[in-house]
Amino acid sequence: MQRVRYAMVGGGEGAFIGPIHRTAAAIAGNCQLVAGAFSSDATRSQRSGEALGLAPERCYASWAALIEGEATLNPAERAEFVAIVTPNHLHAPVAIAALEAGLPVLTDKPLTDTMDAAEAFAAAAARTGGLVGVTHTYAAYPMVRQAKALVAGGEVGAIRRVAVHYTQGWLARAEDAVGKQAEWRIDPARSGLAGAFGDIGTHAFNLVETITGDPMLRLSAELQAAVPGRALDDDGAAMFHLAGGARGTLVASQVCAGDANGLAISVWCEEAGVHWEQEHPNVLRVARRDGPEEIWTPGADRSYLGQQAMRVTRTPSGHPEGYLEAFANIYHDFALAVRGAPPEDPCYATLNAGMRAMRFIAAAHRSSADGGRWIDLEEEQAA
Amino acid sequence: MQRVRYAMVGGGEGAFIGPIHRTAAAIAGNCQLVAGAFSSDATRSQRSGEALGLAPERCYASWAALIEGEATLNPAERAEFVAIVTPNHLHAPVAIAALEAGLPVLTDKPLTDTMDAAEAFAAAAARTGGLVGVTHTYAAYPMVRQAKALVAGGEVGAIRRVAVHYTQGWLARAEDAVGKQAEWRIDPARSGLAGAFGDIGTHAFNLVETITGDPMLRLSAELQAAVPGRALDDDGAAMFHLAGGARGTLVASQVCAGDANGLAISVWCEEAGVHWEQEHPNVLRVARRDGPEEIWTPGADRSYLGQQAMRVTRTPSGHPEGYLEAFANIYHDFALAVRGAPPEDPCYATLNAGMRAMRFIAAAHRSSADGGRWIDLEEEQAA
Amino acid sequence: MQRVRYAMVGGGEGAFIGPIHRTAAAIAGNCQLVAGAFSSDATRSQRSGEALGLAPERCYASWAALIEGEATLNPAERAEFVAIVTPNHLHAPVAIAALEAGLPVLTDKPLTDTMDAAEAFAAAAARTGGLVGVTHTYAAYPMVRQAKALVAGGEVGAIRRVAVHYTQGWLARAEDAVGKQAEWRIDPARSGLAGAFGDIGTHAFNLVETITGDPMLRLSAELQAAVPGRALDDDGAAMFHLAGGARGTLVASQVCAGDANGLAISVWCEEAGVHWEQEHPNVLRVARRDGPEEIWTPGADRSYLGQQAMRVTRTPSGHPEGYLEAFANIYHDFALAVRGAPPEDPCYATLNAGMRAMRFIAAAHRSSADGGRWIDLEEEQAA
Amino acid sequence: MQRVRYAMVGGGEGAFIGPIHRTAAAIAGNCQLVAGAFSSDATRSQRSGEALGLAPERCYASWAALIEGEATLNPAERAEFVAIVTPNHLHAPVAIAALEAGLPVLTDKPLTDTMDAAEAFAAAAARTGGLVGVTHTYAAYPMVRQAKALVAGGEVGAIRRVAVHYTQGWLARAEDAVGKQAEWRIDPARSGLAGAFGDIGTHAFNLVETITGDPMLRLSAELQAAVPGRALDDDGAAMFHLAGGARGTLVASQVCAGDANGLAISVWCEEAGVHWEQEHPNVLRVARRDGPEEIWTPGADRSYLGQQAMRVTRTPSGHPEGYLEAFANIYHDFALAVRGAPPEDPCYATLNAGMRAMRFIAAAHRSSADGGRWIDLEEEQAA
Repeated sequence: MQRVRYAMVGGGEGAFIGPIHRTAAAIAGNCQLVAGAFSSDATRSQRSGEALGLAPERCYASWAALIEGEATLNPAERAEFVAIVTPNHLHAPVAIAALEAGLPVLTDKPLTDTMDAAEAFAAAAARTGGLVGVTHTYAAYPMVRQAKALVAGGEVGAIRRVAVHYTQGWLARAEDAVGKQAEWRIDPARSGLAGAFGDIGTHAFNLVETITGDPMLRLSAELQAAVPGRALDDDGAAMFHLAGGARGTLVASQVCAGDANGLAISVWCEEAGVHWEQEHPNVLRVARRDGPEEIWTPGADRSYLGQQAMRVTRTPSGHPEGYLEAFANIYHDFALAVRGAPPEDPCYATLNAGMRAMRFIAAAHRSSADGGRWIDLEEEQAA
Repeated sequence: MQRVRYAMVGGGEGAFIGPIHRTAAAIAGNCQLVAGAFSSDATRSQRSGEALGLAPERCYASWAALIEGEATLNPAERAEFVAIVTPNHLHAPVAIAALEAGLPVLTDKPLTDTMDAAEAFAAAAARTGGLVGVTHTYAAYPMVRQAKALVAGGEVGAIRRVAVHYTQGWLARAEDAVGKQAEWRIDPARSGLAGAFGDIGTHAFNLVETITGDPMLRLSAELQAAVPGRALDDDGAAMFHLAGGARGTLVASQVCAGDANGLAISVWCEEAGVHWEQEHPNVLRVARRDGPEEIWTPGADRSYLGQQAMRVTRTPSGHPEGYLEAFANIYHDFALAVRGAPPEDPCYATLNAGMRAMRFIAAAHRSSADGGRWIDLEEEQAA
Repeated sequence: MQRVRYAMVGGGEGAFIGPIHRTAAAIAGNCQLVAGAFSSDATRSQRSGEALGLAPERCYASWAALIEGEATLNPAERAEFVAIVTPNHLHAPVAIAALEAGLPVLTDKPLTDTMDAAEAFAAAAARTGGLVGVTHTYAAYPMVRQAKALVAGGEVGAIRRVAVHYTQGWLARAEDAVGKQAEWRIDPARSGLAGAFGDIGTHAFNLVETITGDPMLRLSAELQAAVPGRALDDDGAAMFHLAGGARGTLVASQVCAGDANGLAISVWCEEAGVHWEQEHPNVLRVARRDGPEEIWTPGADRSYLGQQAMRVTRTPSGHPEGYLEAFANIYHDFALAVRGAPPEDPCYATLNAGMRAMRFIAAAHRSSADGGRWIDLEEEQAA
Repeated sequence: MQRVRYAMVGGGEGAFIGPIHRTAAAIAGNCQLVAGAFSSDATRSQRSGEALGLAPERCYASWAALIEGEATLNPAERAEFVAIVTPNHLHAPVAIAALEAGLPVLTDKPLTDTMDAAEAFAAAAARTGGLVGVTHTYAAYPMVRQAKALVAGGEVGAIRRVAVHYTQGWLARAEDAVGKQAEWRIDPARSGLAGAFGDIGTHAFNLVETITGDPMLRLSAELQAAVPGRALDDDGAAMFHLAGGARGTLVASQVCAGDANGLAISVWCEEAGVHWEQEHPNVLRVARRDGPEEIWTPGADRSYLGQQAMRVTRTPSGHPEGYLEAFANIYHDFALAVRGAPPEDPCYATLNAGMRAMRFIAAAHRSSADGGRWIDLEEEQAA
């Protein structure tokens, strides 16, 4: 298969997530960067693109110029999808324009900054029938795919209880909120709803729904700005119910000093518990009700793994894959979908999954503002 | 020092916790079992006591007979304290009678079956001035003492967030609730409030208050009988506030298939996180905001440990101590207190700590019954 | 069963291993200390014994006096076995005298200080038919018993390769060799052959033979005093062959800074590897050729464990047992043997196992002195 | 910087290591595949190259054609280095031809199949002054670079003892030696000296010399074909001496059932031990003589890491990197060197390091054939 051509919006010099996306695409092996609007500063965009080896005329001065410009190229050359790696408030405008131009969109999470924007995004997708993917990266690890398959397969029984934690410490102190990264992430104008619950709580939420295959019905949450003076939540917790009857707890915090990227989930079922930690992503613990605990690990030679995990495993057992490979699985599968042949269990989050994460943020904020009142996720919609 | 003589109520043939207490006392080295009312069946009590090498005349037919009988002996022979290892509903009657007879009481947890009983117990203690200890075992591990000292010492900064889980799987199925153990534990008449929240949630609660040194102010809880047909909760979760401003989550469940005795706590502070797991009790992880994570382990030769941990460490580093040694620390310190010389930071829970755990249970039940309403622990008292 | 009465030689005030033995006996529950010669200083012996609650007349001024004195008591009172916890050079004289007096002997390891002494010890045992046990403690952990049973059961297939490490750091520096402990251990007059290979290498050796059930045939070793000026080896390694054809490596060192009591073994077999680490003794890793790695843990409720492990497990799953409980298993089983009813798979090392460990030390020294020449263990005997 | 153009020899359809190299180069970001001779079958080579998006005319029918063909291109287009991923016996011929043509060579390990070939390779490099790199991948992990820096920095003191294990299980059974991979690896004609000691023992050896910075002086080894009928060693062990006086053990085996890719090293020094395991590559344990054990982890935000680790870290702390990223570090640094600007501490193994690994294999075979006689590595040269 010829590699699928993509354009990137955002991710210029000094950015964090842009290079991650590009490396992921390189690992995927079926994608090729052909154009970009890497910065709102035209000169910087040009410089960034040329450093990446792009043709100068495909380093655009703005995302609008990119969408317009690519449309003028012949179909065998122009970008086949757009990757959006801007701050949150730009996801929707870029995506809507791209969709209107007939370009599929792979956007960083969360879907958008506000529920209004999310609804507009979804409406554009519905209107155009365009393909949308969201990079909830952590759901793309082989052992998460395996966990999902295990639960879906029924062998572990009905889900009883879920606990998911996502704890980081990089905003532990007031003075930590510096640098390009931290600045926009704690600025409501650019992040929207995305404090800790939006930025990382959504990953935790998506991980729950991915592994359990069971939608979250309602939650009771309490968010706070633990560091005085912040406009957005940097810490919070929730109790929740899944549609199938299971109950759970979720913690998301960016002020947990000493933690790096501590995303971990336990799904306790009737016959076994399934446990995974992002910082040791190649280990899936399956603790059986009656029998030794099992350590499942990936590997192209692991006969006990299901197709869902095997399909996204690049190396033999004992050769660790990491975060970039998980990210690559998303690009790989989205590229297949762009060409009309998505795998059965694609690693990118769908638009619907992205919308649900938005509703999760909104419900958490609403619950927290109302003393922890239980809120149904389905209640959440644009005002 | 001559060993401190004690009598045991409960813990006859076939019991679980009685032999644990006796082994703990043997390890402590400063206690000696001299009498017992091991069963409500006089013959069984006699047989149990003789198997333990007791003089026949000190194997009593009932706890009342024991308290009466010991009082007739000369002070150099009679029991100096009573250890209560009965089902929960007997803790208060035995304890009150013992206190009235001038005997200190070391009771298994939870303090009692009901708030009424707890208040009566506390009143008797206040009236008599008698010494009371409660065996919240997990707080007696050396690395828990160290965690407490670390937090108290201020080096890790103010507490931000706490997460404590206590998950077991032994009641995962309806048919698991069999055997002497399970039977009384899920029978409200004998367990009182003590379903999962009472049986193990109280340990989790006590661990939080022990390590943080900060009382729990209020909570929002949701309890359930996950296995249909049970009269008591077998699963639940709560969000809570500590007096100092920190927030936390607590999970207590006995239907988490695959888990054995999964008590684990994380206390995230401004400068470091402190993490401990009961199933690997000799490891205290201290994750610093700026520096490598540290693995603290016990050992009489560990110069970096504080006095609180060193005092209760029996072996050189690398020679693991376990559950029985933690339990022994409680007996050791209680025996010292009985003789009027308690250590500075005793390992047994005080009556007050036991009462607080009762309020925690009651508040959790009240909150759960009222849709997760936030309840202040101080509101809880006998009806 | 009435508790089995024992006397202790050595282990007075300030000793390390004596209190460990006594606590182990207390945990065992079927032993009772009734007499002792705790020190070569009569006053100190008396004081030590009385502090332990012994009758003054059974605190003897010397081990000779103890053996003589106990013999004069009536059979229902006198000690039924002698526990020897002296420095190594006294093991043989005390044991031989005890055996001659009809007293079974449980001695600390290594069996003796020299091969000559070992042969004399063995001769006395043969002559008297007396029972002898050696406290190779680490072989008495439940998960080691399980490992032994797994290998013996054949399910893991023929043994291919073994690696055993025993690394400590307490003698890492010249100035570390201070204190009562270190002094005699690095003094050839009291330790005999027992440098690092004798002191801890023997534990590693015994662990290999216990788990594999396969005698070590020959070895090639290299020992050294890594810290200049020491008369005994403090570090060394060996390659070895087992009788069944497996090959192995053994490292024993007391100068490995940062290590506490790092005994670990891997036994790789045709169908699975079996892995155990003393500092996490409740975990047995069984890594299968085709299937997830399994984590075996002890617990009276673990249906997958064999009788050998279950028999020596005191607590439910998830309630960690430690070093003292392993030691207790030795006392427990030796007491049963003293009364004529040893269990099928006793936890104490036999005299033969102790003799083999002596031959291991001697062979290692001989090989090391001869440039790593391969030496058969069977060659080793008193000069 | 424009990306550095490279050609690949070997690595066509169905190969294992070729795609790994190409993905590594893609992650590196500064390399571009422009040509290849992917198979000794011209049709297959063509098909493989086109599937990779290469121009048809740069998919060569043989490695000789590739070297000749690239030389005819203008300097701004032709390959700037050759990556060799063939079976071992072809490394030297290809490399020598490439060097003669002025092309730098990055070859898979071991350097060659025989000492003769290695000497010829080295002679060609000396003659031409051409740049050579060898892909001893495991030395390129960030935490290995950090370990090297730690030891070099002197803070952990002089090295005392080293233990390195490399255990795999994929050849555990006779019938496992099937498939393209296993076939050539156990065929002396194509693998040369490279049984288990050559294939993976060399990685272990290189890891020792990389981290310690101390050359191995001599060894005593014992190799075997544990599975009957094999022509090459599949299992072995060695004791060794480093030039600085430290002693060590090395185990390399491919018949350790249950192990995947179990490379692990401990370097015990006077003040601390440094421990690393390839299957958990983002953890470096530093166990201090006096203080808690430390867990060092990578991350662009880890202020305690040295430049050597930081330079090769792509992600923020807590975002795991893996095997492919380690491999990418080699390509990245080799590309810099090709352009004349190698980093201070490059991640690829030098020709000299590759030669030393060859001497290690030869010395191990010689020692094993001679009853474990100690052999100096410097003795080893082509017959």
